[in-house]
Amino acid sequence: MQDQPSYLFPLPHTSLIAALAQHVTLSQEEEAAFLAICEIREAKKKEFLLHTGQPTRALYFVQKGCLRSFIVDKAGKEVNLEFAVEHYWISDIGFGKPALLSIQALEPTQYVQINIAAFEQLTQGYPVFNLFFRKLLQNGYFAFKKRTLSGMTQTAAENYRDFLLKFPDLSQRIPQYHIASYLGITPEFFSSIKSEGLDLYQQAIS
Amino acid sequence: MQDQPSYLFPLPHTSLIAALAQHVTLSQEEEAAFLAICEIREAKKKEFLLHTGQPTRALYFVQKGCLRSFIVDKAGKEVNLEFAVEHYWISDIGFGKPALLSIQALEPTQYVQINIAAFEQLTQGYPVFNLFFRKLLQNGYFAFKKRTLSGMTQTAAENYRDFLLKFPDLSQRIPQYHIASYLGITPEFFSSIKSEGLDLYQQAIS
Repeated sequence: MQDQPSYLFPLPHTSLIAALAQHVTLSQEEEAAFLAICEIREAKKKEFLLHTGQPTRALYFVQKGCLRSFIVDKAGKEVNLEFAVEHYWISDIGFGKPALLSIQALEPTQYVQINIAAFEQLTQGYPVFNLFFRKLLQNGYFAFKKRTLSGMTQTAAENYRDFLLKFPDLSQRIPQYHIASYLGITPEFFSSIKSEGLDLYQQAIS
Repeated sequence: MQDQPSYLFPLPHTSLIAALAQHVTLSQEEEAAFLAICEIREAKKKEFLLHTGQPTRALYFVQKGCLRSFIVDKAGKEVNLEFAVEHYWISDIGFGKPALLSIQALEPTQYVQINIAAFEQLTQGYPVFNLFFRKLLQNGYFAFKKRTLSGMTQTAAENYRDFLLKFPDLSQRIPQYHIASYLGITPEFFSSIKSEGLDLYQQAIS
Protein backbone atom coordinates (compact mmCIF):
# COMPACT_ATOMS: atom_id res chain seq x y z
CA MET A 1 0.00 0.00 0.00
CA GLN A 2 1.40 3.31 -1.08
CA ASP A 3 -0.10 5.50 1.61
CA GLN A 4 1.06 3.34 4.49
CA PRO A 5 3.39 5.34 6.72
CA SER A 6 6.32 2.98 6.55
CA TYR A 7 8.35 4.84 9.20
CA LEU A 8 5.75 3.86 11.80
CA PHE A 9 5.33 0.35 10.50
CA PRO A 10 8.60 -0.91 9.11
CA LEU A 11 7.92 -4.59 9.81
CA PRO A 12 5.68 -7.20 8.24
CA HIS A 13 2.14 -6.58 9.45
CA THR A 14 0.41 -9.49 7.72
CA SER A 15 -0.74 -10.96 11.02
CA LEU A 16 -2.29 -7.68 12.15
CA ILE A 17 -4.19 -7.26 8.88
CA ALA A 18 -5.36 -10.87 9.19
CA ALA A 19 -6.54 -10.12 12.74
CA LEU A 20 -8.58 -7.18 11.45
CA ALA A 21 -9.99 -9.25 8.59
CA GLN A 22 -11.37 -11.78 11.08
CA HIS A 23 -13.94 -9.20 12.14
CA VAL A 24 -14.33 -6.59 9.39
CA THR A 25 -13.81 -6.06 5.67
CA LEU A 26 -11.65 -2.98 5.16
CA SER A 27 -10.84 -0.80 2.18
CA GLN A 28 -7.18 0.01 1.49
CA GLU A 29 -7.78 3.50 2.88
CA GLU A 30 -9.22 2.08 6.12
CA GLU A 31 -6.34 -0.38 6.45
CA ALA A 32 -3.82 2.43 5.98
CA ALA A 33 -5.61 4.66 8.49
CA PHE A 34 -5.49 1.87 11.05
CA LEU A 35 -1.83 1.07 10.44
CA ALA A 36 -1.03 4.77 10.85
CA ILE A 37 -1.98 4.61 14.56
CA CYS A 38 -0.08 1.38 15.19
CA GLU A 39 3.33 1.59 16.81
CA ILE A 40 5.74 -1.33 16.66
CA ARG A 41 7.42 -1.85 20.01
CA GLU A 42 9.77 -4.33 21.57
CA ALA A 43 9.95 -5.47 25.16
CA LYS A 44 12.81 -7.29 26.77
CA LYS A 45 12.07 -10.38 28.83
CA LYS A 46 10.58 -9.30 32.20
CA GLU A 47 9.92 -5.74 30.96
CA PHE A 48 6.62 -4.19 32.04
CA LEU A 49 4.20 -2.60 29.57
CA LEU A 50 1.77 -1.58 32.32
CA HIS A 51 1.73 -1.51 36.11
CA THR A 52 -1.41 -1.88 38.26
CA GLY A 53 -2.64 1.61 39.12
CA GLN A 54 -1.22 3.37 36.06
CA PRO A 55 -3.80 4.85 33.68
CA THR A 56 -4.55 2.39 30.87
CA ARG A 57 -3.94 4.09 27.55
CA ALA A 58 -3.34 1.33 25.02
CA LEU A 59 -4.11 -2.10 23.75
CA TYR A 60 -1.47 -4.51 22.54
CA PHE A 61 -1.24 -7.06 19.76
CA VAL A 62 1.58 -9.60 20.02
CA GLN A 63 3.58 -10.19 16.80
CA LYS A 64 6.17 -12.47 18.42
CA GLY A 65 6.82 -13.47 22.01
CA CYS A 66 4.59 -13.69 25.05
CA LEU A 67 2.98 -11.16 27.38
CA ARG A 68 1.16 -11.98 30.59
CA SER A 69 -1.32 -9.97 32.65
CA PHE A 70 -1.35 -10.57 36.38
CA ILE A 71 -2.44 -9.19 39.72
CA VAL A 72 -0.99 -9.46 43.21
CA ASP A 73 -3.59 -11.13 45.42
CA LYS A 74 -4.30 -10.33 49.06
CA ALA A 75 -1.74 -12.91 50.21
CA GLY A 76 0.91 -11.02 48.19
CA LYS A 77 1.09 -13.72 45.52
CA GLU A 78 1.19 -13.02 41.77
CA VAL A 79 -1.80 -14.52 39.93
CA ASN A 80 -1.63 -14.80 36.14
CA LEU A 81 -4.85 -13.80 34.42
CA GLU A 82 -4.05 -14.04 30.74
CA PHE A 83 -1.25 -14.93 28.37
CA ALA A 84 -0.97 -13.28 24.96
CA VAL A 85 1.21 -15.13 22.44
CA GLU A 86 1.54 -14.57 18.68
CA HIS A 87 -1.55 -12.83 17.22
CA TYR A 88 -3.31 -12.35 20.57
CA TRP A 89 -4.65 -9.06 21.89
CA ILE A 90 -4.17 -8.00 25.49
CA SER A 91 -5.14 -4.96 27.55
CA ASP A 92 -6.53 -3.84 30.87
CA ILE A 93 -9.80 -2.63 29.20
CA GLY A 94 -10.55 0.18 31.69
CA PHE A 95 -9.24 2.87 29.38
CA GLY A 96 -8.35 6.09 31.18
CA LYS A 97 -8.93 4.45 34.57
CA PRO A 98 -6.13 3.15 36.81
CA ALA A 99 -5.14 -0.29 35.56
CA LEU A 100 -6.46 -3.26 37.55
CA LEU A 101 -3.59 -5.45 36.41
CA SER A 102 0.02 -5.42 35.27
CA ILE A 103 1.26 -6.52 31.85
CA GLN A 104 4.76 -7.97 31.53
CA ALA A 105 6.82 -9.73 28.85
CA LEU A 106 7.71 -13.36 29.61
CA GLU A 107 9.91 -13.58 26.50
CA PRO A 108 11.56 -10.95 24.30
CA THR A 109 8.39 -9.68 22.65
CA GLN A 110 7.59 -7.70 19.53
CA TYR A 111 4.17 -6.15 19.71
CA VAL A 112 1.92 -3.50 18.22
CA GLN A 113 0.73 -0.78 20.56
CA ILE A 114 -2.49 1.04 19.78
CA ASN A 115 -3.13 4.19 21.74
CA ILE A 116 -6.78 4.22 22.73
CA ALA A 117 -7.19 8.00 22.27
CA ALA A 118 -5.83 7.68 18.72
CA PHE A 119 -8.19 4.76 18.20
CA GLU A 120 -11.20 6.81 19.40
CA GLN A 121 -10.22 9.52 16.93
CA LEU A 122 -9.89 6.96 14.14
CA THR A 123 -13.46 5.75 14.71
CA GLN A 124 -14.74 9.29 14.08
CA GLY A 125 -13.55 9.13 10.48
CA TYR A 126 -13.91 5.38 10.00
CA PRO A 127 -16.87 4.01 12.01
CA VAL A 128 -16.11 0.46 10.80
CA PHE A 129 -13.55 0.29 13.61
CA ASN A 130 -16.36 0.44 16.16
CA LEU A 131 -17.59 -2.83 14.71
CA PHE A 132 -14.06 -4.24 14.80
CA PHE A 133 -13.52 -3.23 18.42
CA ARG A 134 -16.98 -4.39 19.41
CA LYS A 135 -16.22 -7.88 18.05
CA LEU A 136 -12.80 -7.85 19.75
CA LEU A 137 -14.39 -6.94 23.09
CA GLN A 138 -17.18 -9.48 22.67
CA ASN A 139 -14.62 -12.27 22.12
CA GLY A 140 -12.32 -11.03 24.87
CA TYR A 141 -15.14 -10.66 27.40
CA PHE A 142 -16.48 -14.13 26.58
CA ALA A 143 -13.01 -15.72 26.82
CA PHE A 144 -12.32 -14.06 30.17
CA LYS A 145 -15.73 -15.05 31.52
CA LYS A 146 -15.30 -18.61 30.29
CA ARG A 147 -11.88 -18.90 31.90
CA THR A 148 -13.06 -17.41 35.20
CA LEU A 149 -16.04 -19.75 35.32
CA SER A 150 -13.95 -22.78 34.29
CA GLY A 151 -11.86 -22.15 37.39
CA MET A 152 -15.02 -22.65 39.43
CA THR A 153 -16.79 -25.39 37.52
CA GLN A 154 -13.96 -27.63 36.29
CA THR A 155 -11.21 -29.70 37.87
CA ALA A 156 -7.61 -28.47 37.70
CA ALA A 157 -6.81 -31.19 35.14
CA GLU A 158 -9.65 -29.98 32.90
CA ASN A 159 -8.41 -26.41 33.24
CA TYR A 160 -4.91 -27.56 32.23
CA ARG A 161 -6.41 -29.34 29.20
CA ASP A 162 -8.06 -26.03 28.21
CA PHE A 163 -4.76 -24.19 28.67
CA LEU A 164 -3.06 -26.69 26.33
CA LEU A 165 -5.86 -26.38 23.77
CA LYS A 166 -5.52 -22.60 23.80
CA PHE A 167 -1.71 -22.44 23.96
CA PRO A 168 -0.40 -25.73 22.50
CA ASP A 169 3.31 -24.83 22.68
CA LEU A 170 3.44 -22.35 25.56
CA SER A 171 4.24 -24.94 28.23
CA GLN A 172 7.61 -25.43 26.44
CA ARG A 173 8.32 -21.69 26.49
CA ILE A 174 7.57 -20.39 29.98
CA PRO A 175 8.33 -21.64 33.49
CA GLN A 176 5.86 -24.14 34.94
CA TYR A 177 5.07 -21.93 37.94
CA HIS A 178 3.53 -19.37 35.55
CA ILE A 179 1.13 -22.04 34.32
CA ALA A 180 0.28 -23.12 37.86
CA SER A 181 -0.42 -19.46 38.70
CA TYR A 182 -2.71 -19.19 35.63
CA LEU A 183 -4.56 -22.32 36.77
CA GLY A 184 -4.89 -20.84 40.26
CA ILE A 185 -3.08 -23.73 41.95
CA THR A 186 0.26 -24.33 43.65
CA PRO A 187 3.23 -25.65 41.61
CA GLU A 188 3.09 -28.81 43.76
CA PHE A 189 -0.58 -29.48 42.97
CA PHE A 190 0.13 -28.66 39.32
CA SER A 191 2.80 -31.40 39.26
CA SER A 192 0.28 -33.87 40.63
CA ILE A 193 -2.45 -33.15 38.02
CA LYS A 194 -0.19 -32.52 35.01
CA SER A 195 -0.26 -35.96 33.41
CA GLU A 196 -4.04 -36.25 33.89
CA GLY A 197 -4.44 -32.89 32.09
CA LEU A 198 -2.15 -34.08 29.28
CA ASP A 199 -4.27 -37.22 28.86
CA LEU A 200 -7.44 -35.11 28.64
CA TYR A 201 -5.71 -32.91 26.06
CA GLN A 202 -4.69 -35.93 23.96
CA GLN A 203 -8.28 -37.19 24.07
CA ALA A 204 -9.58 -33.77 23.04
CA ILE A 205 -7.33 -33.41 20.00
CA SER A 206 -7.47 -37.01 18.79
CA MET B 1 -42.35 9.65 18.14
CA GLN B 2 -44.79 8.82 15.39
CA ASP B 3 -42.97 5.88 13.86
CA GLN B 4 -42.48 4.05 17.12
CA PRO B 5 -44.30 0.71 16.95
CA SER B 6 -46.39 1.15 20.07
CA TYR B 7 -47.64 -2.44 20.07
CA LEU B 8 -44.11 -3.63 20.72
CA PHE B 9 -43.33 -0.94 23.24
CA PRO B 10 -46.46 0.03 25.13
CA LEU B 11 -44.68 1.04 28.33
CA PRO B 12 -42.60 4.04 29.33
CA HIS B 13 -39.13 3.59 27.87
CA THR B 14 -37.49 6.70 29.28
CA SER B 15 -34.89 4.68 31.16
CA LEU B 16 -33.90 2.73 28.04
CA ILE B 17 -33.50 5.90 25.98
CA ALA B 18 -31.43 7.38 28.83
CA ALA B 19 -29.27 4.24 28.82
CA LEU B 20 -28.63 4.69 25.10
CA ALA B 21 -27.90 8.41 25.53
CA GLN B 22 -25.13 7.57 28.01
CA HIS B 23 -23.08 6.23 25.12
CA VAL B 24 -24.37 7.69 21.85
CA THR B 25 -26.34 10.61 20.43
CA LEU B 26 -29.22 9.28 18.37
CA SER B 27 -31.56 10.82 15.83
CA GLN B 28 -35.30 10.21 16.25
CA GLU B 29 -35.12 7.73 13.39
CA GLU B 30 -32.29 5.80 15.08
CA GLU B 31 -34.16 5.78 18.41
CA ALA B 32 -37.27 4.45 16.71
CA ALA B 33 -35.30 1.77 14.85
CA PHE B 34 -33.78 0.62 18.13
CA LEU B 35 -37.09 0.57 19.98
CA ALA B 36 -38.57 -1.47 17.14
CA ILE B 37 -36.33 -4.43 18.05
CA CYS B 38 -37.01 -4.16 21.79
CA GLU B 39 -39.53 -6.50 23.35
CA ILE B 40 -41.03 -5.78 26.76
CA ARG B 41 -41.18 -8.94 28.83
CA GLU B 42 -42.12 -9.87 32.35
CA ALA B 43 -40.68 -12.62 34.50
CA LYS B 44 -42.23 -14.03 37.64
CA LYS B 45 -40.06 -14.41 40.72
CA LYS B 46 -37.75 -17.45 40.26
CA GLU B 47 -38.49 -17.63 36.51
CA PHE B 48 -35.51 -18.39 34.24
CA LEU B 49 -34.63 -16.27 31.23
CA LEU B 50 -31.70 -18.49 30.26
CA HIS B 51 -30.30 -21.85 31.34
CA THR B 52 -26.61 -22.84 31.17
CA GLY B 53 -26.04 -24.69 27.90
CA GLN B 54 -28.88 -23.06 25.95
CA PRO B 55 -27.80 -20.93 22.99
CA THR B 56 -27.54 -17.27 24.03
CA ARG B 57 -29.71 -15.19 21.74
CA ALA B 58 -30.50 -11.99 23.62
CA LEU B 59 -29.42 -9.30 25.99
CA TYR B 60 -31.63 -7.91 28.71
CA PHE B 61 -32.22 -4.47 30.18
CA VAL B 62 -34.04 -4.36 33.53
CA GLN B 63 -36.84 -1.80 33.81
CA LYS B 64 -38.02 -2.92 37.25
CA GLY B 65 -37.05 -5.84 39.46
CA CYS B 66 -33.90 -7.89 39.76
CA LEU B 67 -32.23 -10.58 37.66
CA ARG B 68 -29.22 -12.63 38.68
CA SER B 69 -26.73 -14.62 36.64
CA PHE B 70 -25.21 -17.67 38.26
CA ILE B 71 -23.34 -20.91 37.66
CA VAL B 72 -23.32 -24.22 39.49
CA ASP B 73 -19.76 -24.86 40.69
CA LYS B 74 -17.98 -28.20 40.81
CA ALA B 75 -19.24 -28.80 44.38
CA GLY B 76 -22.83 -28.45 43.06
CA LYS B 77 -23.30 -25.04 44.71
CA GLU B 78 -24.91 -22.05 42.98
CA VAL B 79 -22.53 -19.09 42.67
CA ASN B 80 -24.00 -15.69 41.82
CA LEU B 81 -21.97 -13.77 39.25
CA GLU B 82 -23.98 -10.62 38.63
CA PHE B 83 -27.13 -8.88 39.72
CA ALA B 84 -29.04 -6.60 37.35
CA VAL B 85 -31.45 -4.18 39.00
CA GLU B 86 -33.26 -1.17 37.51
CA HIS B 87 -31.45 0.17 34.40
CA TYR B 88 -28.76 -2.53 34.34
CA TRP B 89 -27.89 -4.70 31.35
CA ILE B 90 -27.27 -8.43 31.69
CA SER B 91 -26.40 -11.22 29.28
CA ASP B 92 -24.22 -14.25 28.78
CA ILE B 93 -22.21 -12.48 26.00
CA GLY B 94 -21.30 -15.61 24.03
CA PHE B 95 -23.99 -15.00 21.44
CA GLY B 96 -24.92 -18.10 19.46
CA LYS B 97 -22.77 -20.28 21.72
CA PRO B 98 -24.14 -22.42 24.58
CA ALA B 99 -24.63 -20.16 27.60
CA LEU B 100 -22.00 -20.40 30.31
CA LEU B 101 -24.44 -19.21 32.96
CA SER B 102 -28.12 -19.11 33.89
CA ILE B 103 -30.20 -15.95 34.29
CA GLN B 104 -33.11 -15.95 36.74
CA ALA B 105 -35.50 -13.38 38.23
CA LEU B 106 -35.12 -12.81 41.99
CA GLU B 107 -38.18 -10.52 42.04
CA PRO B 108 -41.10 -10.06 39.66
CA THR B 109 -39.17 -8.33 36.88
CA GLN B 110 -40.08 -6.19 33.91
CA TYR B 111 -37.32 -6.14 31.33
CA VAL B 112 -36.49 -5.33 27.75
CA GLN B 113 -35.25 -8.21 25.62
CA ILE B 114 -33.08 -7.46 22.61
CA ASN B 115 -32.58 -10.30 20.19
CA ILE B 116 -28.95 -10.30 19.12
CA ALA B 117 -29.69 -11.32 15.52
CA ALA B 118 -32.12 -8.40 15.22
CA PHE B 119 -29.47 -6.17 16.77
CA GLU B 120 -26.85 -7.31 14.22
CA GLN B 121 -29.30 -6.49 11.45
CA LEU B 122 -29.98 -3.07 12.99
CA THR B 123 -26.27 -2.21 12.90
CA GLN B 124 -26.23 -2.78 9.13
CA GLY B 125 -28.56 0.16 8.61
CA TYR B 126 -27.48 2.19 11.64
CA PRO B 127 -23.76 1.70 12.39
CA VAL B 128 -24.01 4.02 15.42
CA PHE B 129 -25.24 0.99 17.36
CA ASN B 130 -21.81 -0.63 16.97
CA LEU B 131 -20.43 2.28 18.97
CA PHE B 132 -23.22 1.91 21.53
CA PHE B 133 -22.65 -1.83 21.92
CA ARG B 134 -18.88 -1.37 21.98
CA LYS B 135 -19.20 1.03 24.92
CA LEU B 136 -21.65 -1.30 26.66
CA LEU B 137 -19.24 -4.22 26.28
CA GLN B 138 -16.27 -2.14 27.37
CA ASN B 139 -18.08 -1.17 30.59
CA GLY B 140 -19.45 -4.65 31.18
CA TYR B 141 -16.09 -6.33 30.60
CA PHE B 142 -14.33 -3.87 32.91
CA ALA B 143 -16.96 -4.29 35.65
CA PHE B 144 -16.77 -8.09 35.45
CA LYS B 145 -12.96 -8.03 35.49
CA LYS B 146 -12.93 -5.62 38.42
CA ARG B 147 -15.33 -7.76 40.41
CA THR B 148 -13.45 -10.98 39.66
CA LEU B 149 -10.14 -9.40 40.68
CA SER B 150 -11.65 -7.79 43.78
CA GLY B 151 -12.56 -11.27 44.94
CA MET B 152 -8.84 -12.10 44.84
CA THR B 153 -7.28 -8.87 46.04
CA GLN B 154 -9.71 -7.58 48.68
CA THR B 155 -11.08 -8.80 51.98
CA ALA B 156 -14.69 -10.05 52.15
CA ALA B 157 -15.66 -6.88 54.08
CA GLU B 158 -14.23 -4.70 51.29
CA ASN B 159 -16.11 -6.75 48.71
CA TYR B 160 -19.33 -6.28 50.69
CA ARG B 161 -18.64 -2.51 50.79
CA ASP B 162 -18.35 -2.56 46.98
CA PHE B 163 -21.59 -4.53 46.69
CA LEU B 164 -23.36 -1.88 48.82
CA LEU B 165 -21.85 0.93 46.75
CA LYS B 166 -23.08 -0.70 43.55
CA PHE B 167 -26.48 -1.84 44.85
CA PRO B 168 -27.39 0.44 47.78
CA ASP B 169 -30.88 -0.98 48.40
CA LEU B 170 -30.54 -4.55 47.13
CA SER B 171 -29.66 -6.06 50.50
CA GLN B 172 -33.19 -5.11 51.60
CA ARG B 173 -34.74 -6.83 48.61
CA ILE B 174 -33.12 -10.24 48.24
CA PRO B 175 -32.21 -13.04 50.68
CA GLN B 176 -28.86 -12.68 52.42
CA TYR B 177 -27.59 -16.03 51.08
CA HIS B 178 -27.71 -14.58 47.55
CA ILE B 179 -25.35 -11.82 48.66
CA ALA B 180 -23.02 -14.31 50.37
CA SER B 181 -23.00 -16.35 47.16
CA TYR B 182 -22.13 -13.19 45.15
CA LEU B 183 -19.27 -12.48 47.56
CA GLY B 184 -18.06 -16.06 47.20
CA ILE B 185 -18.37 -16.83 50.92
CA THR B 186 -20.61 -18.91 53.19
CA PRO B 187 -23.69 -17.31 54.82
CA GLU B 188 -22.00 -17.88 58.21
CA PHE B 189 -18.83 -16.03 57.21
CA PHE B 190 -20.99 -13.30 55.65
CA SER B 191 -22.74 -12.81 59.02
CA SER B 192 -19.37 -12.37 60.69
CA ILE B 193 -18.05 -9.69 58.26
CA LYS B 194 -21.33 -7.86 57.61
CA SER B 195 -20.99 -5.05 60.14
CA GLU B 196 -17.37 -4.42 59.18
CA GLY B 197 -18.49 -4.10 55.53
CA LEU B 198 -21.28 -1.72 56.55
CA ASP B 199 -18.75 0.44 58.41
CA LEU B 200 -16.51 0.57 55.34
CA TYR B 201 -19.54 1.52 53.24
CA GLN B 202 -20.49 4.34 55.64
CA GLN B 203 -16.91 5.64 55.48
CA ALA B 204 -16.96 5.49 51.68
CA ILE B 205 -20.18 7.47 51.27
CA SER B 206 -19.61 10.03 54.04
